[in-house]
Amino acid sequence: MTKLKNDTLIRALLRQPTEYTPVWMMRQAGRYLAEYNQTRARAGNFLSLCKNPDFATEVTMQPLARFPLDAAILFSDILTIPDAMGLGLYFAEGEGPKFERPLREEWEIQALTVPDPNVHLRYVMDAVSQIRKTLDNQVPLIGFSGSPFTLACYMVEGCGGTDFRQIKTMLYQRPELLHHILNINAQSVTSYLNAQIESGAQAVMIFDTWGGALSHNAYQEFSLRYMSQILAGLKREHGGVRIPAVVFTKGGGLWLESIANSGCDAVGLDWTTDIGEARRRIGDKVALQGNLDPFVLFASPEVITAETEKILASYGNGSGHVFNLGHGISQFTPPESALTLVDAVHALSRKYHQ
Amino acid sequence: MTKLKNDTLIRALLRQPTEYTPVWMMRQAGRYLAEYNQTRARAGNFLSLCKNPDFATEVTMQPLARFPLDAAILFSDILTIPDAMGLGLYFAEGEGPKFERPLREEWEIQALTVPDPNVHLRYVMDAVSQIRKTLDNQVPLIGFSGSPFTLACYMVEGCGGTDFRQIKTMLYQRPELLHHILNINAQSVTSYLNAQIESGAQAVMIFDTWGGALSHNAYQEFSLRYMSQILAGLKREHGGVRIPAVVFTKGGGLWLESIANSGCDAVGLDWTTDIGEARRRIGDKVALQGNLDPFVLFASPEVITAETEKILASYGNGSGHVFNLGHGISQFTPPESALTLVDAVHALSRKYHQ
Repeated sequence: MTKLKNDTLIRALLRQPTEYTPVWMMRQAGRYLAEYNQTRARAGNFLSLCKNPDFATEVTMQPLARFPLDAAILFSDILTIPDAMGLGLYFAEGEGPKFERPLREEWEIQALTVPDPNVHLRYVMDAVSQIRKTLDNQVPLIGFSGSPFTLACYMVEGCGGTDFRQIKTMLYQRPELLHHILNINAQSVTSYLNAQIESGAQAVMIFDTWGGALSHNAYQEFSLRYMSQILAGLKREHGGVRIPAVVFTKGGGLWLESIANSGCDAVGLDWTTDIGEARRRIGDKVALQGNLDPFVLFASPEVITAETEKILASYGNGSGHVFNLGHGISQFTPPESALTLVDAVHALSRKYHQ
Repeated sequence: MTKLKNDTLIRALLRQPTEYTPVWMMRQAGRYLAEYNQTRARAGNFLSLCKNPDFATEVTMQPLARFPLDAAILFSDILTIPDAMGLGLYFAEGEGPKFERPLREEWEIQALTVPDPNVHLRYVMDAVSQIRKTLDNQVPLIGFSGSPFTLACYMVEGCGGTDFRQIKTMLYQRPELLHHILNINAQSVTSYLNAQIESGAQAVMIFDTWGGALSHNAYQEFSLRYMSQILAGLKREHGGVRIPAVVFTKGGGLWLESIANSGCDAVGLDWTTDIGEARRRIGDKVALQGNLDPFVLFASPEVITAETEKILASYGNGSGHVFNLGHGISQFTPPESALTLVDAVHALSRKYHQ
């Protein structure tokens, strides 16, 4: 493999010196871009978009054509693993993801098996290879997966946006059943992310979207523990190059110290945490990624620039910061706001890297 | 007024010695109780239930007849103030609260006025008086209000459960408009809670349900600041008796130190915070209220008891803890689980008060 033309993201994730703070945006390939909606219309629906490597490559590249981003992120769904397990992922019009066969019976849980990523998730690996080829080493490609607990929420509840009653009832009443699911999920995520790395992902991120719904004790036992298990099993080097791993628990600001000890290279922050305070709490043990409130992008360029500067100043001098939103970009965001943000990060951050 | 027969809650909120840890449950009068659903059916709908002091008294008393709770809490809605401002609160079948006339235009915001609680919210004051009479000093009555920011979310978005796009756009782009709304709301909440205190409320609580959706800076400026303003204007004594005030920001665990400095007597905790860690962080400055995950009540009596003991042990020895759930009780909770919880708190907590 030839060398990355822009490896700023990788260096920042490894806390090596950079000239400026790299930036990418969670859900940067998405509905706020007209060209994304056009590709999605051609694909027919969201799942066909994910499952076709040509379409997945096309939408992954779209935001890079518009904005000078420092990373691409694989376009895929968070729920590919349970779909590969046979739960039947589908999207009802205007609703979030659902499963045709959520885990309702104990025998269904006992029958779960770890999918082979190179067979059952071949389409993802093909997308990763094709995106890498198309990127031509311009910027690194980030691979990703949902966390074991977040996947389990959807698998048990059958859909998102619930009060977590079913999975929490299992957690408190039948913890051994939930541990069984989480163990299968952790093995699945490990081999899924390792296959992405072998296919060309140059950094990986674990999205723990729902870990923040747990109590402090339950978070450690049912979410973080399994992310640590994954991190211990990940290939952290490929082709002689270090592959950084990021963990992002939405709503996990109270638990940063333990997340930083999970074995990851960087911790993702949502917008509720002060990034400077986070840096003081966990020292320079890991890099930090975040954390602008995505709704700042609905304000004027002046406000976007001022809020960006606040976060850069709060982090302060030196490397180890990857700028991002604190959550996925809203589908209603004006694309020109994203450009303002990316340009502001690049221009304003240089003074912190001298 | 004669003396309370059980003033354990008041003493705990003021960090005075108690014999055991008092307990009540957020939303303790609610849909998980068959008798509540019967009263609601007689009332016709939820709003008629709130607006009729006889019905409000009846449902406020219902959980006390079942469980040996240490407090009653006024049965009312969080959105009575904006309704009194003329926004037209209504509940569509099977959905949350909505407003007929949300704040869409600048002139609507400029035209907002502070309602007179003894006129426009007379039905709440009548309910407070009637509940106090019915309680006959058995346990204290807690009055409450939504926080200025939480009220503003509903007033601007028009309903709950949104992504906060409209209010956050205002916050970042037209902060002076949002400050105007929040200032009116803070004045309204102050006079509303003071009227509840004059009508007989023996403690008050501010529910900041949505403050946790803000960034750390925005929380200080747009939510906590206005709660501090209210606390500075509250009558803290009535009839020679101290009236404790509790502030509860759901998702506010990162900001406990500043909440504890707001002028409140106690800080409510959701279930994501370790209560022992919270006590170490803020010392004995204020009391703490919380914080069992409401979904523990879907487990067996053994698990409920064990999880209750964990929280009591984490808080440790001495007064200053009011046991509660970390959020409102779920409508699907088996009522016998609530009894298990209340009994467990009373039985297990005595050893921490010797």
